Amino acid sequence: MTRPCILCAAITGSVARKEDNPAVPITVAEQVESLQDCFEAGAAIAHCHVRNDDQSPSADPETFARLMEGIRKHCPGMIVQVSTGGRSGVGAVRGGMLPLCPDMASLAVGSNNFPTRVYENPPDLVDWLASEMQKYDVKPEIEAFDLSHIFQAVTMARDGRLKAPLYVQFVMGVKNAMPADRPSFEFYVQTLKRIAPDAEWCGAGIGRHQIEVNEWSMALGGHTRT
Amino acid sequence: MTRPCILCAAITGSVARKEDNPAVPITVAEQVESLQDCFEAGAAIAHCHVRNDDQSPSADPETFARLMEGIRKHCPGMIVQVSTGGRSGVGAVRGGMLPLCPDMASLAVGSNNFPTRVYENPPDLVDWLASEMQKYDVKPEIEAFDLSHIFQAVTMARDGRLKAPLYVQFVMGVKNAMPADRPSFEFYVQTLKRIAPDAEWCGAGIGRHQIEVNEWSMALGGHTRT
Ligand SMILES: [Zn+2]
Ligand SMILES: [Zn+2]
Ligand SMILES: [Zn+2]
Ligand SMILES: [Zn+2]
Repeated sequence: MTRPCILCAAITGSVARKEDNPAVPITVAEQVESLQDCFEAGAAIAHCHVRNDDQSPSADPETFARLMEGIRKHCPGMIVQVSTGGRSGVGAVRGGMLPLCPDMASLAVGSNNFPTRVYENPPDLVDWLASEMQKYDVKPEIEAFDLSHIFQAVTMARDGRLKAPLYVQFVMGVKNAMPADRPSFEFYVQTLKRIAPDAEWCGAGIGRHQIEVNEWSMALGGHTRT
Repeated sequence: MTRPCILCAAITGSVARKEDNPAVPITVAEQVESLQDCFEAGAAIAHCHVRNDDQSPSADPETFARLMEGIRKHCPGMIVQVSTGGRSGVGAVRGGMLPLCPDMASLAVGSNNFPTRVYENPPDLVDWLASEMQKYDVKPEIEAFDLSHIFQAVTMARDGRLKAPLYVQFVMGVKNAMPADRPSFEFYVQTLKRIAPDAEWCGAGIGRHQIEVNEWSMALGGHTRT
């Protein structure tokens, strides 16, 4: 039997602006339209960020609610994954949309450097986000920006802070964090199989590393992320 | 020819207090006495932290100067490595002792979680500490708390921010960071050999993992840290 490969479409993120690329969907209407194209092309998961009117990143629950409503209407059955990443706010603000019960939410379980700053995910915030996800029955996608994050997710699953089976995304190619390195990618996959054999995983390469990391992922039996 | 194994003695750190263990050397006089024992027992590097009178961690250059003077006098030839770790201060304070020109200094090149907080090493602070080390001819010991930190150190060496050959310490067993995991340790060693073949390295296990990680290190041709 062929194993299906999940395609997760991340269309907006929190960085790129119209000035950088006029095709970036920013408003809810633009995002829904773009996600409908993705959905019709075979994407199963919509990885969602929302923006303020000035295009700056936001975690506003009301905007997320409108986006989720649009996706449900125009992409029936598409899995909605909201970002709880740190670019859209600080502290509990990052999880303010979880009571909307999206299907999934991203969850960073450790800290690391980003191009110009520390990506701060302090242990108490991680635990709070994880508990909110359990409360609202939201499936976390673990964002593994480094090797220890894989171990941390498995530790959290073992002591009940996360529900198994885990879904882990290996993120590579962020400046000052893990580069896109094939042997490390393979070691990530081996490690996850060793310590959490029932986990599913996907590879995400940032920027110019996107296709490369998706190819590694498909070759090794994982899922993909645009 | 037998390859010598360097033993680095870390006697004080920034956490343990007399209440935890009356044998912890806190004052400069206690530290010099303890380091003399280590030196006579074969330790080649003294990894140094200083404390305030109330035992709280400090980065006070004057206290470091007195400690260095004591080590030079009582342990002639012992390599002095000062800590620039984040428990003893925030920002540039962490490098305030570098103008004393110690032989070595610890250098974290990335961020990660610690048991209760984020160990923050923002890119600009890392670059500043590295440049101060070049300025005062201080050899950095890279503290690799995660896999990406190895890559980051090699990137910094390639673009001139660090001087090759690198000396890298693999730190394992910190809660919420990398656990003491033998396959990961071996992958660390392999990775460093692959991307920086001239580097030297040592293993440091925290707390109850100390002996275990030192044994792995010796078995694989690395150096050790108490
Ligand atoms: Zn995202
Ligand atoms: Zn994904
Ligand atoms: Zn130290
Ligand atoms: Zn060492």
